[in-house]
Amino acid sequence: MIRVAVVGYGTIGKRIADAVAKQRDMVLVGIAKTKPDYAALSAARKGYRIFAPKSELERFAKAGIEVSGTIDDLVEEADIVVDATPKGVGATNRAEVYDKHDVKAVFQGGEKPSVAEVSFNALANYDEAVNKRYIRVVSCNTTAILRIVAAMRLWGLELEKLRVFIARRGADPKEYGRGPINDVVLDPPAVPSHHADDVRTVVPNLDIVTMAVAIPTTIAHIHFLHATLKDRVSRDQVVEALYRTPRIALFESRYGFKSVAQVIEWARDIGRLRGDVPENIVFLDTVDVRGRELFLVMAVHQESIVIPENIDAIRAAMGIRNAWSSIRATDESLGLVSEGKRYG
Amino acid sequence: MIRVAVVGYGTIGKRIADAVAKQRDMVLVGIAKTKPDYAALSAARKGYRIFAPKSELERFAKAGIEVSGTIDDLVEEADIVVDATPKGVGATNRAEVYDKHDVKAVFQGGEKPSVAEVSFNALANYDEAVNKRYIRVVSCNTTAILRIVAAMRLWGLELEKLRVFIARRGADPKEYGRGPINDVVLDPPAVPSHHADDVRTVVPNLDIVTMAVAIPTTIAHIHFLHATLKDRVSRDQVVEALYRTPRIALFESRYGFKSVAQVIEWARDIGRLRGDVPENIVFLDTVDVRGRELFLVMAVHQESIVIPENIDAIRAAMGIRNAWSSIRATDESLGLVSEGKRYG
Repeated sequence: MIRVAVVGYGTIGKRIADAVAKQRDMVLVGIAKTKPDYAALSAARKGYRIFAPKSELERFAKAGIEVSGTIDDLVEEADIVVDATPKGVGATNRAEVYDKHDVKAVFQGGEKPSVAEVSFNALANYDEAVNKRYIRVVSCNTTAILRIVAAMRLWGLELEKLRVFIARRGADPKEYGRGPINDVVLDPPAVPSHHADDVRTVVPNLDIVTMAVAIPTTIAHIHFLHATLKDRVSRDQVVEALYRTPRIALFESRYGFKSVAQVIEWARDIGRLRGDVPENIVFLDTVDVRGRELFLVMAVHQESIVIPENIDAIRAAMGIRNAWSSIRATDESLGLVSEGKRYG
Repeated sequence: MIRVAVVGYGTIGKRIADAVAKQRDMVLVGIAKTKPDYAALSAARKGYRIFAPKSELERFAKAGIEVSGTIDDLVEEADIVVDATPKGVGATNRAEVYDKHDVKAVFQGGEKPSVAEVSFNALANYDEAVNKRYIRVVSCNTTAILRIVAAMRLWGLELEKLRVFIARRGADPKEYGRGPINDVVLDPPAVPSHHADDVRTVVPNLDIVTMAVAIPTTIAHIHFLHATLKDRVSRDQVVEALYRTPRIALFESRYGFKSVAQVIEWARDIGRLRGDVPENIVFLDTVDVRGRELFLVMAVHQESIVIPENIDAIRAAMGIRNAWSSIRATDESLGLVSEGKRYG
């Protein structure tokens, strides 16, 4: 059993903890939190052991939340840490905590690539991460793009170039203080957005340009994806490639899927925890091929898309060599769309 | 003096009426409205003569708004009507009213192209509309795209193909009943969106593909524009072409322009009526050229962008042969960005 600690228990951390708890080959040693808030209460109710900074132990006690030790105690018990702390904190944690323990670690895309030996996407470069001590799972939009790149490569559809135009959700649902409201923000007011470089941390030579704006939604990012392929392909070939690739789900308008919220509603209806959709949400009727050009629109559920990749990153770090066995185990445990399933 | 009637006094109609009133070679005969609401009160306060359907005369009287006659009376006094009624009503008005009078008419982009002899954009095909009886001004997004196409053609930068990815504002500011709220809607869930065909009503052989989604804003549409040019060009050439083309305004991030709302705030600050920005709002720092590829992000103020085109369409219909003299007169009267001005 792989002993996993989760440090940071926000939007991503709490989902990773729940996903770890579902794996047959992993045990959740505990989670580290800095504040005794409602998320800590939920974690306690789930039976997760909670670890906190020394300075906060009294606050946790006052809030009636039992603490099992400090973050160093947690890390000491673990084979591997998944660090889901806010941007930049991961690098500090590595220097101050992980480097000093005999522990591996998985970081999130908010950290700089240099925090780890390898930037990671399960479908694109699992093999490169096997037995690495430090792995960085790329961020949500980058993960979605890499899955498409991987799908094309897996099924022999070679990309000449990729242009992705992203309308980012302004904030996560719980982040009441962030905008924009009734505005569209250039993010950044320049070309390219950081996503192109981030994709290249995993697929170095890809000809990719990305642009992004932020919009007043909390529900998901949306991508206009425009690829030029090296050879002419048929739409059927592309749809088949997407259809047969895990973690890419196709939604058809004839079943009423005409917006992102409808897809999330479907996830809530079928009982997905938190209504999460960690798959790429591809709107099937937008998949269009003209000569060597491919167009599609997809949505990216930013709260959950990187969760399966974090689970696979744990296995890769711990020396599990077969990418597909990890991907299958992860997807089955989370009830994800795997090969050969089409939704709607 | 060209005697102009405006039929329909919503978002577009009221702006056209105000713009007509500012032209030295035009006189606003009156406006036609169906309801004695706050817009009718504002029109009356501006001194515009109001015409209404016979069935509504009593309601107008009760509301204390003086009516100068019926729509037939209005049309009888005019050389040309600008029809800014809701989608489809223009075609009905043509058949039931305009065809029976000795009057010309300008329709909006919500009407089918067949409503008129020519679909119109001042920069792209003014000459084709000269002396036509019926002209259709294409809709807001199409107008914005055509201005870019025209700018490229005017300055000798030949387009090979154009790909535009549009995040549409969900509703106009006053339309409280429309969505989406916190959702992104496929519009349509297919490729291409109608904009490509609409652009081709003016520039028939253009290789253009457009895709669109609707987002929860009322402020403006936003376009990711991706063009492939026939020859390699420099960024300076492209910026110069945009800079020298009327009705295209460039906004620089170093002056703080990083979102659409900031551009609208600027328009309000300088005293633009209603805070309108009828120019293409091009974010200068997003203009990027890589080989033969051009990228840029622009916003489209849907409430006002077609207003200058309607004024020019009037002149074209009435036989004014010089496009540039009309464009200059319109832009000066409305205080628009003309050639050689850069904002920010």
